[in-house]
Amino acid sequence: MGPHPAVAAIRLAVRRVLHDLLTEHHRAPAAVPHALSHEQPPPPLVLVACSGGADSMALASALAFESPKLGIRAGGVTVDHGLQPGSDLRAAEVVQRLRELGLDPVDSVAVTVGRAGGPEAAARDARYAALDTAAERHGAAAVLLGHTRDDQAETVLLGLARGSGIRSLSGMAAVSGAGGRYRRPFLELDRQTARKACMVQSLPVWDDPHNADPAYTRSRLRHEGLPALEKALGKGVVEALARTAQLSRDDADALDSWAAQAEATVRDAAGLLDCAKLYALPPAVRRRVLRRAATAAGAPAGSLFARHIEEVDRLITGWRGQGAINLPGKVVARRQGGRLVIRQG
Amino acid sequence: MGPHPAVAAIRLAVRRVLHDLLTEHHRAPAAVPHALSHEQPPPPLVLVACSGGADSMALASALAFESPKLGIRAGGVTVDHGLQPGSDLRAAEVVQRLRELGLDPVDSVAVTVGRAGGPEAAARDARYAALDTAAERHGAAAVLLGHTRDDQAETVLLGLARGSGIRSLSGMAAVSGAGGRYRRPFLELDRQTARKACMVQSLPVWDDPHNADPAYTRSRLRHEGLPALEKALGKGVVEALARTAQLSRDDADALDSWAAQAEATVRDAAGLLDCAKLYALPPAVRRRVLRRAATAAGAPAGSLFARHIEEVDRLITGWRGQGAINLPGKVVARRQGGRLVIRQG
Repeated sequence: MGPHPAVAAIRLAVRRVLHDLLTEHHRAPAAVPHALSHEQPPPPLVLVACSGGADSMALASALAFESPKLGIRAGGVTVDHGLQPGSDLRAAEVVQRLRELGLDPVDSVAVTVGRAGGPEAAARDARYAALDTAAERHGAAAVLLGHTRDDQAETVLLGLARGSGIRSLSGMAAVSGAGGRYRRPFLELDRQTARKACMVQSLPVWDDPHNADPAYTRSRLRHEGLPALEKALGKGVVEALARTAQLSRDDADALDSWAAQAEATVRDAAGLLDCAKLYALPPAVRRRVLRRAATAAGAPAGSLFARHIEEVDRLITGWRGQGAINLPGKVVARRQGGRLVIRQG
Repeated sequence: MGPHPAVAAIRLAVRRVLHDLLTEHHRAPAAVPHALSHEQPPPPLVLVACSGGADSMALASALAFESPKLGIRAGGVTVDHGLQPGSDLRAAEVVQRLRELGLDPVDSVAVTVGRAGGPEAAARDARYAALDTAAERHGAAAVLLGHTRDDQAETVLLGLARGSGIRSLSGMAAVSGAGGRYRRPFLELDRQTARKACMVQSLPVWDDPHNADPAYTRSRLRHEGLPALEKALGKGVVEALARTAQLSRDDADALDSWAAQAEATVRDAAGLLDCAKLYALPPAVRRRVLRRAATAAGAPAGSLFARHIEEVDRLITGWRGQGAINLPGKVVARRQGGRLVIRQG
């Protein structure tokens, strides 16, 4: 008798990612030329980032099961955010559970969460910095993250609330980070499957109280926003949001590449943007060219909102002699003699 | 003392659209060459589609106020959907109110609502057919519709639930229909402003019971889904959704134009699609080319879902000798000798 369908599903998802990693591993040039050193390349190490919650415990169990069959070493990292009393004991417990699954090495990393960008963003920044460090210390080929399709749906809605266009609707990528370090095998798997897989494997899981804390936007979305949306629109909403993420990502990539090409064609010999040529571009492409020019001039991408770009765009499409436009990062955009000048100061 | 800010806002919104219409009217070639007939062109007629609800009553009042100042004739149409007992009396009452505002001509049109596509789609189809007929009978230059930013936000969420990409996120256009007949002056105005404008002008308004009927998806969204989303994500959600609509529309337009150009470059001398050239396109563009080819071959656009296109795409990106793929409208896609053949039967 085969494994429970939920366990089969999580293992298949992890197996696919491990196959991809092995293919890349064998293709990549080794840091030390093994043909000269007469040594076999060491088997790659894959780490799982594990909070002890159901999603990442399911991921850890599937990694522990699949990796030996593919000659991959499997380890784990848990991050102690230090946000609750006893979080160090909790982290030690997760380390213990990962070791019991057969993972090695297993690290617990304590981080200090700052305040920049709000509590959720600060915790995320601290967590990824710790995971980067752990991956580099162990020379890991990849770090697996337990984000599910439900997390993806929430991320799309959070992006939607920014109203800043399709890039912010594209959610999390299946492959991200420096050199494609982060992999998300469960991005097309629902949270319920991960929970079920833990249950049938008798894996103890921990529910992070933050996940149910209404002070957190994502938690409110999870427990109130999304269920209300499902009630209004039907059960397929999570799947539809996840599909929207993938389609939006591809669309945003295509338009970014178009804008990169277009930018070269609308600059004159002196490198200035030609207003007539900008005017001839489709609005979606023109706005992306303007955004590129503004960030290249020093405007921080994160502070540059759709309304800034719209205002600059009106120098092209609604020219009636308006003055210079101030952008974040002390960048100024002005129209001068048929040219758009965007520069700092 | 000027008018109440809400009244000023609805009038400004309508004035802008009337200005656009006048500009287009004077530019358009007349059906009868007036230079030869020595006659002045008749002033254009603009109709308002009015249910008697707050949004369209506010719109009617603003049209009645602004049109004489611009030499525009203003009329109205109300559609009796015949879905409730006494709907004919209701329609007669709306006609009376529109006449009291000074609109002329004012029509009431009774329609029979079918069942195709569900109750909401069937009612909408019947309504637009009646509005088209009325516009043609009177030779109207435009029909104004009272959709607000809130309606737009709901439409974006309904599109999101389909999960079929950014075109379905682009909501309603400010200008749509044959020859740009339909105009939506309130698309950037919130519903609250329209209600307020009716109140301060002592305009009686009628609340369609369908708008509060939980049997209707849009009504559930309005009364439960959107408020829960606002509670989770903050008050800016409606505005963010409306901005997403505009940005998505521009993006979808740009990608459609790219796909139209790309399609010509990937066909060989015999007009067949070259798989290698398709493979080289960005995924977002390739999928649009495939969709264009499928609809050109006879697949009905409304039945062609993202999953169909994905399956055809795998003939290009994941070729392992798979067989022909059946699409709606008896269209079949198959790969033959490096060419993709999409045809009926």
